Amino acid sequence: MSELSHLDSDGRARMVDVGGKAVTHRTATASGRLVTRPDVIALVRADDLPKADVLATARIAGIAGAKRTSDLIPLCHQLPLSSVKVDFDFGEDSIGITVTARTTGQTGVEMEALTGVAIAGLTLHDMIKAVDPAAVLTDVRLDDKTGGKRGHWTREE
Amino acid sequence: MSELSHLDSDGRARMVDVGGKAVTHRTATASGRLVTRPDVIALVRADDLPKADVLATARIAGIAGAKRTSDLIPLCHQLPLSSVKVDFDFGEDSIGITVTARTTGQTGVEMEALTGVAIAGLTLHDMIKAVDPAAVLTDVRLDDKTGGKRGHWTREE
Amino acid sequence: MSELSHLDSDGRARMVDVGGKAVTHRTATASGRLVTRPDVIALVRADDLPKADVLATARIAGIAGAKRTSDLIPLCHQLPLSSVKVDFDFGEDSIGITVTARTTGQTGVEMEALTGVAIAGLTLHDMIKAVDPAAVLTDVRLDDKTGGKRGHWTREE
Amino acid sequence: MSELSHLDSDGRARMVDVGGKAVTHRTATASGRLVTRPDVIALVRADDLPKADVLATARIAGIAGAKRTSDLIPLCHQLPLSSVKVDFDFGEDSIGITVTARTTGQTGVEMEALTGVAIAGLTLHDMIKAVDPAAVLTDVRLDDKTGGKRGHWTREE
Amino acid sequence: MSELSHLDSDGRARMVDVGGKAVTHRTATASGRLVTRPDVIALVRADDLPKADVLATARIAGIAGAKRTSDLIPLCHQLPLSSVKVDFDFGEDSIGITVTARTTGQTGVEMEALTGVAIAGLTLHDMIKAVDPAAVLTDVRLDDKTGGKRGHWTREE
Amino acid sequence: MSELSHLDSDGRARMVDVGGKAVTHRTATASGRLVTRPDVIALVRADDLPKADVLATARIAGIAGAKRTSDLIPLCHQLPLSSVKVDFDFGEDSIGITVTARTTGQTGVEMEALTGVAIAGLTLHDMIKAVDPAAVLTDVRLDDKTGGKRGHWTREE
Repeated sequence: MSELSHLDSDGRARMVDVGGKAVTHRTATASGRLVTRPDVIALVRADDLPKADVLATARIAGIAGAKRTSDLIPLCHQLPLSSVKVDFDFGEDSIGITVTARTTGQTGVEMEALTGVAIAGLTLHDMIKAVDPAAVLTDVRLDDKTGGKRGHWTREE
Repeated sequence: MSELSHLDSDGRARMVDVGGKAVTHRTATASGRLVTRPDVIALVRADDLPKADVLATARIAGIAGAKRTSDLIPLCHQLPLSSVKVDFDFGEDSIGITVTARTTGQTGVEMEALTGVAIAGLTLHDMIKAVDPAAVLTDVRLDDKTGGKRGHWTREE
Repeated sequence: MSELSHLDSDGRARMVDVGGKAVTHRTATASGRLVTRPDVIALVRADDLPKADVLATARIAGIAGAKRTSDLIPLCHQLPLSSVKVDFDFGEDSIGITVTARTTGQTGVEMEALTGVAIAGLTLHDMIKAVDPAAVLTDVRLDDKTGGKRGHWTREE
Repeated sequence: MSELSHLDSDGRARMVDVGGKAVTHRTATASGRLVTRPDVIALVRADDLPKADVLATARIAGIAGAKRTSDLIPLCHQLPLSSVKVDFDFGEDSIGITVTARTTGQTGVEMEALTGVAIAGLTLHDMIKAVDPAAVLTDVRLDDKTGGKRGHWTREE
Repeated sequence: MSELSHLDSDGRARMVDVGGKAVTHRTATASGRLVTRPDVIALVRADDLPKADVLATARIAGIAGAKRTSDLIPLCHQLPLSSVKVDFDFGEDSIGITVTARTTGQTGVEMEALTGVAIAGLTLHDMIKAVDPAAVLTDVRLDDKTGGKRGHWTREE
Repeated sequence: MSELSHLDSDGRARMVDVGGKAVTHRTATASGRLVTRPDVIALVRADDLPKADVLATARIAGIAGAKRTSDLIPLCHQLPLSSVKVDFDFGEDSIGITVTARTTGQTGVEMEALTGVAIAGLTLHDMIKAVDPAAVLTDVRLDDKTGGKRGHWTREE
């Protein structure tokens, strides 16, 4: 079985050396859902109307969070993102969050996409917690990635 | 129904004024789980033995992330935390993450505990993603909080 | 004539000691304007309609910037803000920005309000610079402050 | 008329994809002025003499601020700057601030130069605010830029 | 012998709970030295004359670094500093650095003073490294602290 | 004698232009020691056993600190590190810290390695300060560097 690559042979954490890896275009898409109550969804959906900043606030937080990934996740490399996009969709009792990040670099942007989802989701959580402290951020996961030695990976349903 | 408190009457985002709220001791406990495969759990559990830095890395990231909450979540207030504790437990195919944050202040620390869980969980995700890109961070949620006008809240199972 | 308080008797920069000052409620309101062309104003005003995130993006950036003041302005004290509010209004060829910040602390929040205006204004600048690279951020200034030993100050017109 | 490039077709904010743009040398020069009173200018000019750290403090803040642009302006890309230079000049009742930033990258450094001007200007403001709370940071604007598809742009007087 | 207080009974890192400690005035003074060559000292001392920004740059970096301590040292509490002062003195082949930090809070500012010394020293190192890559930052240590349950502590020579 | 490269001809601080320098692989190794008492070393060495997070905490802080160098040292360029490694070794009364940083870029990573040593050392200091407030971080220095115009440099003993 493969070892955990972020540990050296003594089990000590390190930032893995990516200096010898090829510079390629890389993308990653991650998603998650904030599960709440239908009446809270109705409050947030008012944001589709010309009323409220809820989704815009979470979108900006997700973009800013994705850019700050290497500052938050200790063993992540610093990667300048060439684009970040945050989308939302509504279920009956949940808000879906999808983030796509891109770079041209020596390592992938999975963590940037995942961090964007988590921070956007927590920002939604923050804005609804007074009406629903029981909301749950769930299913934060990588959906698809391209670029790098391993090439295309997509989640099997 | 109550409105979303982070929006003014025009629906615009703002940092709510907490200047008139009482300074009280406040705690919040949040949890989540990183779901992966049993063989990956075995790799990480080796960290219980004197081998590896996996859990320590995630723990430090969670503590640092909790302290940076107001920098990540746009409408969160800056709260000096009086303590942060990050614990892990193992299921067959998942790692449980529990964070407890405390402060003495004018607003609660729910978001600090939740952010700690998310960042610790993403850090675990980062360390196992080479062996399991399909891992999922799930059930990130508030479990319990005390302090403030509303007093004790605990999740109903 | 009064000396510059941020310098010691040798002219060296320091963070002034506020440890002996009274803890009082303090507010500051600052404003500024981004001057551009009427056709660009029309593009941004579309944001009043249910269309675009321009003002929400600048508002969130202004709030986040105000919270990060002590990290940006070297001799500013770290002040937990109890509220921040960012408002916009439109002139024929300019967008007005007004930020109000509040705290309960030992020193004032003028710089927090001013930093909020500057970062919100630069964010607007960023979003319109492809259509108007000649836009100008101007009249960034304190309008009003309360609290502290000197009490109420308001700009004379 | 051109649309605002930072918005997608639904008006939602995003970090524009620059992954397909050419890597070129890019420069930007921006300027601004802090308007105060002649007696305050005299206090600050003492810094030309071997006395005070006023201008050095603002210079360092401007350089550090320029490097932090992508952390402050939500839709800005992360750009490693190859140089930053901050200059000051004195008028009768104002201090001029000029910042030149350079990079080799896929997008321009206008916002880095402008952010450097704003943070240097706010730092000056902070240092003189006890003697002149009415000071105004004004005329923060791009003067010149080179590199990229559009090539050289210079402000028309 | 006393245990390490930053570890729980299982040896796991945590942010110690200071919520029950008294709020007192606290100060800490730390110092260190950058050892280099006499000819480099001569270059830097030119900064005493109206020539150069070397010491001012290191001073501002030290102040900013002290304010960022809890963001750098994982188990440090967030403490708003009421003042920070950075002083330099010259030996034949070294530059002495002394930082005094103050707060009113529930835990001490030793780490803030020490971090200020280290960042100011590294900044000097950065500025002279082209002429003396062999310079050494040494003797970074706490000299004196007051406040808190243990009261006054001073280094025995 | 060579001038200080971080100053312009007027003695003003600037970020030196590295835009014309070659992009090469660069490494730097720096080291330092935290001097304490033998009984404290014994407490920390327990971390070699499956007991405590002391070294892991310092290691993560050192890696994160190295990545944040350009945010801490005002005139440092932003360099994406391709790897960072932090090692510890024990003497009778001191803990040795060694950090190796690598990049592919236009300027060296000496400051990144040195900052990693200083932050790891300060984190150890923080964890032992309750039992040994007199501990001293010493001998923080560059040991070796490769890459760039000057090529290989190694410390002469």
